[in-house]
Amino acid sequence: MQQHSTLGREVDIDRFWQDVQTQARIGALPEGGLGRLALDESDIEARLWLIEQAASLGASAFHDPIGNLYLRREGRSPELPPLLIGSHMDSQPRGGIYDGALGVIAGLAVLRTLHEQDITLECPVEVVSWTNEEGARFAPGTPGSAWFAGVRDIAAIMASRDDAGVSFEQALAPCLEAMEARGSTKRETPFSPSAYLELHIEQGPVLDAGQLPACVVVGIQGVNWYRFRLQGRANHAGTTPMDMRRDAVMGAHALIRELENCVNRRGSQVRFTIGKFSVAPDSINTIADEVSFTVDLRHPDGSVLAAIDDDFAALAATHWQGCPATLERLSSIAPVTFDSAILASLEQKLETYATKAPRLVSGAFHDAIHLANLCPAAMLFVACRDGISHHPDEHVEKDDAAVAVRTLTDTVLELAQG
Amino acid sequence: MQQHSTLGREVDIDRFWQDVQTQARIGALPEGGLGRLALDESDIEARLWLIEQAASLGASAFHDPIGNLYLRREGRSPELPPLLIGSHMDSQPRGGIYDGALGVIAGLAVLRTLHEQDITLECPVEVVSWTNEEGARFAPGTPGSAWFAGVRDIAAIMASRDDAGVSFEQALAPCLEAMEARGSTKRETPFSPSAYLELHIEQGPVLDAGQLPACVVVGIQGVNWYRFRLQGRANHAGTTPMDMRRDAVMGAHALIRELENCVNRRGSQVRFTIGKFSVAPDSINTIADEVSFTVDLRHPDGSVLAAIDDDFAALAATHWQGCPATLERLSSIAPVTFDSAILASLEQKLETYATKAPRLVSGAFHDAIHLANLCPAAMLFVACRDGISHHPDEHVEKDDAAVAVRTLTDTVLELAQG
Repeated sequence: MQQHSTLGREVDIDRFWQDVQTQARIGALPEGGLGRLALDESDIEARLWLIEQAASLGASAFHDPIGNLYLRREGRSPELPPLLIGSHMDSQPRGGIYDGALGVIAGLAVLRTLHEQDITLECPVEVVSWTNEEGARFAPGTPGSAWFAGVRDIAAIMASRDDAGVSFEQALAPCLEAMEARGSTKRETPFSPSAYLELHIEQGPVLDAGQLPACVVVGIQGVNWYRFRLQGRANHAGTTPMDMRRDAVMGAHALIRELENCVNRRGSQVRFTIGKFSVAPDSINTIADEVSFTVDLRHPDGSVLAAIDDDFAALAATHWQGCPATLERLSSIAPVTFDSAILASLEQKLETYATKAPRLVSGAFHDAIHLANLCPAAMLFVACRDGISHHPDEHVEKDDAAVAVRTLTDTVLELAQG
Repeated sequence: MQQHSTLGREVDIDRFWQDVQTQARIGALPEGGLGRLALDESDIEARLWLIEQAASLGASAFHDPIGNLYLRREGRSPELPPLLIGSHMDSQPRGGIYDGALGVIAGLAVLRTLHEQDITLECPVEVVSWTNEEGARFAPGTPGSAWFAGVRDIAAIMASRDDAGVSFEQALAPCLEAMEARGSTKRETPFSPSAYLELHIEQGPVLDAGQLPACVVVGIQGVNWYRFRLQGRANHAGTTPMDMRRDAVMGAHALIRELENCVNRRGSQVRFTIGKFSVAPDSINTIADEVSFTVDLRHPDGSVLAAIDDDFAALAATHWQGCPATLERLSSIAPVTFDSAILASLEQKLETYATKAPRLVSGAFHDAIHLANLCPAAMLFVACRDGISHHPDEHVEKDDAAVAVRTLTDTVLELAQG
């Protein structure tokens, strides 16, 4: 199949980019960007759009009990484990149009290229869109790939609720129904892929700063999610002397200072973010009786994460300005390293289309973190402007994305020859 | 009228307490306490209930353009400026059943006693329920009495909006309509009362700790309300190095530390409360691009408030963790001192029913703060358990309230003799 070794050159980049723009209209925000929360109306609409593409790709659609959607192009040996290309279609509440979707659309481009060139590979190739990768609606994120890889229990996922109290199971039911009605076939169980490839925007500044279109990703930081709660005592803001208060806001403020100190002691690779912070009763002249805030903690070294976890538990065991604290561990994902053979293959293909780029460790987590524990896996990063993501200003250059999708295509060709 | 000098003994305390319990059912929370926000359905229902009482009190109902409701008992000289007894019926989102309502119901008890004893005083006596004293729905609080006293412009009040974006004017319209339909007469303009009396729970621990039922209040702390905003930069929690962030939560945290320091320098009489705190986009794995929080600042000395105000403005003029800050002054109410002659009268009457209690300065603000600038005014405090208010646990003993309402009755009798 030598003539195909640079099949990537045949990818219809204009069509690929048109698909990127089409999906971006589903759940678009008035101010720009994307607000497509997992299993909301726009997320369901995006899935139905994917199913509609299947025919023109020479593929058929399947979905599993957790809502993951697969588009399968049959291989010469249908009994072989499929090569899986995946990412996600859900976004942050005020997110960009590339985070996740670019990787799924890149998968479509691969299938379309194979279809147009009338190439049937040895093993089946499937493009998967994982459910709720962001975790912005149902925490923690990546339940779809976590269930597929057998590392998370489906019952716990189904029971998780969004801020409005809607359970994952309640939100999923109409989605499964709609996909089935649109012609997708139900699959009961996961399978073991021959390999997994994920193309994603970097969500960091390195490639953009180096004017590099894309690079291979050698691994992913570990991620721990926490919720801290402080119990205060609601009382009148004007009549309660400062020394007689149990103010949950001031307690949280004191606790956060110590969390900061204990994280800063661990060096510059640590990432520490308080993304959610809520106060009750949230009244201007009432002392807060409860504060709840989340922590997103990341590091490439699992032992450092474990040490910080111990520190957090110790801090949550004491009172802050008279307010007892509690620590809830929402999720914990260990760091991973990707498959060296696939990384070598990706890197070689990449050099057909771009200058050699440094290998990166992903600061963001991705569905690939779970797949890497199931089969040989690796990722490709595409440069994003100023490293901005999870924001409407998120931007990717068409030419940079083209380099990555061509590289992906050539790598699929090599891996799926069997 | 010597025989009436202790008319307070004739107050039907059981009926008074029954009225307190009746109003507490309007907007009652499942967990106990009261959630009767200004101009919501339950607040309107409470007003209609008051109008229904008028007949049995020998009174007639009036309302003004801002929704303040007046129940008037005519005097022998209708042309004389009325003696005004008032408080408010609205509550905190999760408040108690006595804060505000006790003072209005005490006014009803005075009118009922005059009616049952068939006493017509020289000047008219009116019981007023002021709109939105708490300011929990529409900030700032006390717009009803502030407009009545001519210190706040009606247009600005009408334009203020609740957290759902509903304007005061939109919420008021159905309320005015309902009161008119229930037989209340519209009054276009405020008037200058001969005097103003307000009975209110202490909302502090002093009386309860001293096992004292009630006391007179010599003045009210000044209150400034502020909103601080910090502008950050939304970005991915995993990929953005700590030293490249503009995290609005961490900026707010650093600013709050300095606000605390500058307030603590001003001594123990200051009251400093951060009651509302909101984060955008409020996602667990996105760095916050905006934080907004409120400050409730109180002190009996206006010059100390002015000095802290200057400090706040200076702090808001700088960046915090790279995040620019802004300071919005939501309201400012200067401290007041009440009328010495009325205080003497109240204190003398109080001693008929209870042992002499120390005079207090109110830590909470009340509608009386505005009336004090319009006419001779004073307040009576009733003990509340543990000083707890703005909370469902707020509690008042019937016997303590009885002492205060009897004292109020005797004082009205004296002041309204003309």
